[in-house]
Amino acid sequence: MKLGMIGLGRMGANMAQRLLRDGHEVVGFDPQAAARQALEKHGATSADSLEALVAALPAPRVLWLMVPAGEVTDQSLDALLPLLAPGDIVVDGGNSNYKDTLRRAKQFDAHGIAYVDCGTSGGVWGLDEGYSLMIGGDEAAVERLRPVFESLAPARDSGWGRVGPVGSGHFTKMVHNGIEYGMMQAYAEGFSILKHKTAFGLDLHGIAEIWRHGSVVRSWLLDLTADALQKNPDMAGIAPYVADSGEGRWTVDEAIELNVPAPVITQSLIERLRSRDDDSFTDKLLSAMRNEFGGHPIKKE
Amino acid sequence: MKLGMIGLGRMGANMAQRLLRDGHEVVGFDPQAAARQALEKHGATSADSLEALVAALPAPRVLWLMVPAGEVTDQSLDALLPLLAPGDIVVDGGNSNYKDTLRRAKQFDAHGIAYVDCGTSGGVWGLDEGYSLMIGGDEAAVERLRPVFESLAPARDSGWGRVGPVGSGHFTKMVHNGIEYGMMQAYAEGFSILKHKTAFGLDLHGIAEIWRHGSVVRSWLLDLTADALQKNPDMAGIAPYVADSGEGRWTVDEAIELNVPAPVITQSLIERLRSRDDDSFTDKLLSAMRNEFGGHPIKKE
Amino acid sequence: MKLGMIGLGRMGANMAQRLLRDGHEVVGFDPQAAARQALEKHGATSADSLEALVAALPAPRVLWLMVPAGEVTDQSLDALLPLLAPGDIVVDGGNSNYKDTLRRAKQFDAHGIAYVDCGTSGGVWGLDEGYSLMIGGDEAAVERLRPVFESLAPARDSGWGRVGPVGSGHFTKMVHNGIEYGMMQAYAEGFSILKHKTAFGLDLHGIAEIWRHGSVVRSWLLDLTADALQKNPDMAGIAPYVADSGEGRWTVDEAIELNVPAPVITQSLIERLRSRDDDSFTDKLLSAMRNEFGGHPIKKE
Amino acid sequence: MKLGMIGLGRMGANMAQRLLRDGHEVVGFDPQAAARQALEKHGATSADSLEALVAALPAPRVLWLMVPAGEVTDQSLDALLPLLAPGDIVVDGGNSNYKDTLRRAKQFDAHGIAYVDCGTSGGVWGLDEGYSLMIGGDEAAVERLRPVFESLAPARDSGWGRVGPVGSGHFTKMVHNGIEYGMMQAYAEGFSILKHKTAFGLDLHGIAEIWRHGSVVRSWLLDLTADALQKNPDMAGIAPYVADSGEGRWTVDEAIELNVPAPVITQSLIERLRSRDDDSFTDKLLSAMRNEFGGHPIKKE
Repeated sequence: MKLGMIGLGRMGANMAQRLLRDGHEVVGFDPQAAARQALEKHGATSADSLEALVAALPAPRVLWLMVPAGEVTDQSLDALLPLLAPGDIVVDGGNSNYKDTLRRAKQFDAHGIAYVDCGTSGGVWGLDEGYSLMIGGDEAAVERLRPVFESLAPARDSGWGRVGPVGSGHFTKMVHNGIEYGMMQAYAEGFSILKHKTAFGLDLHGIAEIWRHGSVVRSWLLDLTADALQKNPDMAGIAPYVADSGEGRWTVDEAIELNVPAPVITQSLIERLRSRDDDSFTDKLLSAMRNEFGGHPIKKE
Repeated sequence: MKLGMIGLGRMGANMAQRLLRDGHEVVGFDPQAAARQALEKHGATSADSLEALVAALPAPRVLWLMVPAGEVTDQSLDALLPLLAPGDIVVDGGNSNYKDTLRRAKQFDAHGIAYVDCGTSGGVWGLDEGYSLMIGGDEAAVERLRPVFESLAPARDSGWGRVGPVGSGHFTKMVHNGIEYGMMQAYAEGFSILKHKTAFGLDLHGIAEIWRHGSVVRSWLLDLTADALQKNPDMAGIAPYVADSGEGRWTVDEAIELNVPAPVITQSLIERLRSRDDDSFTDKLLSAMRNEFGGHPIKKE
Repeated sequence: MKLGMIGLGRMGANMAQRLLRDGHEVVGFDPQAAARQALEKHGATSADSLEALVAALPAPRVLWLMVPAGEVTDQSLDALLPLLAPGDIVVDGGNSNYKDTLRRAKQFDAHGIAYVDCGTSGGVWGLDEGYSLMIGGDEAAVERLRPVFESLAPARDSGWGRVGPVGSGHFTKMVHNGIEYGMMQAYAEGFSILKHKTAFGLDLHGIAEIWRHGSVVRSWLLDLTADALQKNPDMAGIAPYVADSGEGRWTVDEAIELNVPAPVITQSLIERLRSRDDDSFTDKLLSAMRNEFGGHPIKKE
Repeated sequence: MKLGMIGLGRMGANMAQRLLRDGHEVVGFDPQAAARQALEKHGATSADSLEALVAALPAPRVLWLMVPAGEVTDQSLDALLPLLAPGDIVVDGGNSNYKDTLRRAKQFDAHGIAYVDCGTSGGVWGLDEGYSLMIGGDEAAVERLRPVFESLAPARDSGWGRVGPVGSGHFTKMVHNGIEYGMMQAYAEGFSILKHKTAFGLDLHGIAEIWRHGSVVRSWLLDLTADALQKNPDMAGIAPYVADSGEGRWTVDEAIELNVPAPVITQSLIERLRSRDDDSFTDKLLSAMRNEFGGHPIKKE
């Protein structure tokens, strides 16, 4: 299949490569010339504008967006819409908020253009191992894209699927990331307890390796954690600072909106906020309160 | 009533003073001569050994311990036991773990000595405002001590009471402190949210003052928080470091043992641990994991 | 001062009465004739339409809204706006989301009408004890309303205040309620631990009474809790079901938006959601998982 | 190698079988004759008393305990100790608390008997897939047992290892289970959010299958969750009741003792307690409080 890939950053470039490897034709677009040239080396053609990209594709067209969620996605879509024709398909493969997806799909649908949302997991490993794809959208549109999904996924018939109507793909990916936060936090807390039990002098990497085989907690995240612990057992030089890219927040919002108690996913997000708050007003005030009622000494800064 | 006060630190000295003010005779003991002399200025006599203390009291004796929980309490009690006689009463007014209290009471009971546990709240304010006293022990022993409790409490007939058999006083105080942790954390989080809403430029002390009158969150802790915010609105010079003195941990242990979910009290304790962990291995490992699967940048230390 | 009170439900009627008691003139409006008549008995006049209400007030007018947050507030304001003139003041005394307040204020401001938000705490007790009032809005408008605030608050010069620009009153009230959730949960967990320690046979009401005097956890909420425990020590006939009216959710949202960790306020909200989920899919799935990996028995429904 | 297996329940019998399959000689002991006979069918011999078991083994003996943690383990060990001789090895493969293990090891060590603790993960799947073995104890003793570990583990050279001195095996297994609680809770919350998003009509089993391939949350637990969701998508007939077998509690205790914040592991345990508390006093009291201050209606039981 011939398709246009918009956004040739780490994710977009890798996905384009994986498609090329499997025999698809990819026309790449990215505002950075270097990114376009890099992809060309893997067999793609490229376009230096959205207009050129659309012109290079046979109708009905398939356009796959792999750009940062939020404003950049809106700008790309706004520029793209007037260039397309009924029957074309637009896929948003990024980490968009599903509510934005619902809004955007409505707009494209009004022009007869199918809008498909594809939650994509797999990170930097997807190029070689394949991507897990959670797809939302019209059944016929998803079916037309089958050859693409079969190439991107780890296997022809697994690791991808239509989960429901448009929006449901990004919704499912959002929840996926919420779960990911919880799992990561559980592992990190556990290894931290092991680390602090100095009386036993435990080798954290060794334990991770044991757990990787046969244990109830074995997982791909554990494989990666074992790697990280092998490379840098004491996490030397790494700041205790954990970023978040939005999906965790949305999961928490959604859980509350749905009245679903999600204490562990929520707390995992809060822990990330906490990691970035190294001058906690909350804790200072607590210390001041203890001094007020009990005369307990305050630790000075 | 004439009684011996063992331990003339901040709490013991204040309680002794409050008893003296109300006409009781207090013989004070403390290993520090300065502490004994300070109390004498308020009208007490003092003893420079436990032997001398016991000798100075009329039988049946009343000995009130106000020493740090744990080993110091055990050492004091071990030294005291051989000096006492059946009919004497020992009161532990400190923050002992109720399980220790049960063990110690058994030992004293075997010698015919009544053991009474008195959970004491009120901090540095108790001298003037009176102490809230949660008392466990034999009914007759508690009744004999009535004049003492009436003087220590904020009022003759309120702010003190026998809550159950020996151990139940410290148990109740332990839970009291668990609740205290939760309330403090709730206030501190709330004020922190207000603080971070910089667009509104809120005056935290002013808000605390408004809340002190007529609001649902008014409380004595809020009064103290208002004081703290007035003195030091930005908590300048205070480290974000919150100590804990044990009762919170015991409350969490007990809740788990009783199968009672106590998420907020538990989390309040965990937040204190967190405040002291400024080099979190958990967070470093989380950052490393994110780098492993998604190539997300690690913040360097 | 003469003012119009829109919404004569429990809160509005009580606030109108408190104003009447202090010599203000109140014209009440409510779609329910019975509510209007009830207020008239306390010395108010009433209007059977917003038009009549506005006509009954001297310019520049003061209109105080005490209606349910959300749609009802929007409907009332939409109906009111065309009836007003530059210089009039509208006060929203309800539990509106501060983001709605910002939006509404902009609209009224464009017509030269001052918009004031007044977060109001005090519940059913406010009529006699006074209300805690957190006020946002233009300084001059707030100053004009001074006589009203002085009558509603517990005292002339305390329990009320301008906390910042429009929106900040509702923002502060929102955080107030978040704190309230955390405090309530802390008390409830603590009493539950006491309750489950059956070996001690503790009298929960008695303990609450002791704590009310001199303890660190004394508060108005504790006074009410003591009342509740006296009336119904075993909470007989009460379902373990806790409603929430929105401010807790908004506080959680806001904390996340501001990157402020608020674990205890957040968990208190989650516990309320949990109380209403008596058929938890989460727990069922956990039970099924345990069976899958360990052959652990599943409890049947 | 010839060894004695004490305890032929689900875990012990499966482990014995796996050893038999790999050429070891197993003498089984269990108080239940049926359990002994069942194992004999797989090629083991058996003994009907600990005395007979010990007599059937060549010195120095290897005895492997696979009995319930706690009292049963203590009783077995007490009965075994007088029958053994210096140079023998006792392995506790159960889920013992590591503090008990330290105590027991000291006792056996005093008699010249090596005590090895082996945390064992793998559940009912271990027979075919092998067990993950976290081993604590003297290096020489562990080395002597190498052939046994190589047979029990998923592969000769992986899935098992000595993690440190005696006690460290059970410690590591305890933390493993704590992590397991957190992971399970994260998945269960996530699937519950998906379930409650009824607008999308999501197929939970289908999503689990997609995630199993290529996603960041892929794991063995997810494989099992997919199975469970396939068999019973709505968890029909399953009570929302989640048991716990102790290791989670110990992990929480240990984290607090070590001052390591472990909010997600802790909350996962609390959620299990919550699942069994379908008549929450906490929630009833919260409902009563809301009624007290705000006149909010109470839901009746």
